[in-house]
Amino acid sequence: MSLRYLSAKVAQQIDDELMSAAGAFSLDQLMELAGLACAQALAKVYGAERYPRVLVCCGPGNQGGDGLVAARHLSMFGYKPTIYMPKPGSKDIYQRLHTQCKNMSISTLPEDEQSLRTALKSSDVVLDAIFGFSFKGPIRAPFDAALPLLSTSRLPIVSVDIPSGWDVEAGNEAGVGLNPHVLVSLTAPKEGVRLFRGQHFLGGRFVPRTLEEKFQLNLPTYPGYDQIVDITELTQKL
Amino acid sequence: MSLRYLSAKVAQQIDDELMSAAGAFSLDQLMELAGLACAQALAKVYGAERYPRVLVCCGPGNQGGDGLVAARHLSMFGYKPTIYMPKPGSKDIYQRLHTQCKNMSISTLPEDEQSLRTALKSSDVVLDAIFGFSFKGPIRAPFDAALPLLSTSRLPIVSVDIPSGWDVEAGNEAGVGLNPHVLVSLTAPKEGVRLFRGQHFLGGRFVPRTLEEKFQLNLPTYPGYDQIVDITELTQKL
Repeated sequence: MSLRYLSAKVAQQIDDELMSAAGAFSLDQLMELAGLACAQALAKVYGAERYPRVLVCCGPGNQGGDGLVAARHLSMFGYKPTIYMPKPGSKDIYQRLHTQCKNMSISTLPEDEQSLRTALKSSDVVLDAIFGFSFKGPIRAPFDAALPLLSTSRLPIVSVDIPSGWDVEAGNEAGVGLNPHVLVSLTAPKEGVRLFRGQHFLGGRFVPRTLEEKFQLNLPTYPGYDQIVDITELTQKL
Repeated sequence: MSLRYLSAKVAQQIDDELMSAAGAFSLDQLMELAGLACAQALAKVYGAERYPRVLVCCGPGNQGGDGLVAARHLSMFGYKPTIYMPKPGSKDIYQRLHTQCKNMSISTLPEDEQSLRTALKSSDVVLDAIFGFSFKGPIRAPFDAALPLLSTSRLPIVSVDIPSGWDVEAGNEAGVGLNPHVLVSLTAPKEGVRLFRGQHFLGGRFVPRTLEEKFQLNLPTYPGYDQIVDITELTQKL
């Protein structure tokens, strides 16, 4: 049985079920575990000694919240993260997660393009938490300018769930998305990343067996007590 | 600089600051990370192959909530946890965490003493999340009967924060507490465990540096991306 790739609609249904009265998870819990998984995946590939300066790019939605959680954990892991968040989310949880980062002395870039340019020159790796599985193009300002800057920086990129700019189902057909070296799919990979050929992790070790079966996810076994599992080979078998 | 041992009052102050408007953490977040740390510590010492059956004993307070989170993660890690929770907490979060466990097919024992006796005979290790740092004796029913049963079972015990029955500051002077093999202190060890001589982990990798400095915690460095650090040697230097 092979791993299921999710449409945007099914990904949303799974999230809804997890947070329904029956699923009983709070957004705080799921975001904490998702962000921790992203931080672990980055730490697994890009060690803090060689890649201390992480530019954490956050969109305005829940994906941006995952990024803020990851930034905090990365700081705990010994990294020096900086947050790029030109359109802060309006939800209360988003503000709280940002405050937690500020309490860790993690700085946030000014919103202008030049600040991003400058920051990229003094970063070692990018965590891309801009767009998630609810992304619908086209890419709007200020991200229409930011994505090309990230791409041309030639820094290694770790993308969360779907590389920013990729269609959740059609992938990077339009060619305007990022080309991450590492992808962290959350819960299960999305349709759009079938052709992704970098290092691929799965995170979101919180899906109950009943939900896994209902949606026929066929999840792999996570190792030990990690919050991530490497699915590179599993997804790139010929 | 040595690790600071906390009084019950200071432990409460730190919790309050973390969850204040300035600290910005939600109880959901902190409990998730605390419970995950407990599950990791148990997994580090008692592998799922030799010790699959974990009896997770939960008190009615936040400590019991940590236990429920740990039970869920242990189930994810491949253990077969069972919950003993004779006095369920009344908070909404407690109910939600219990529902999450039920969704993982984790069973909860009936509340009677005989069920506990029977369950102990088919368990490999106990996770003690009965009393936390707000415990004030004497030990009341049904825990006055449960603690001796846990002690006489001779199963290895992993205690969370303060071994149940120990005074948070005076320790096990009265001799009525559990004698765990492993202790997982959360945030920082409590005064009462200065004389603990088993394997000792620290969890709660979420304390911002500013708070650490304000309370002079002198926390050790956590390894890699673990949520726990072994402080056995650090706390048992002569």
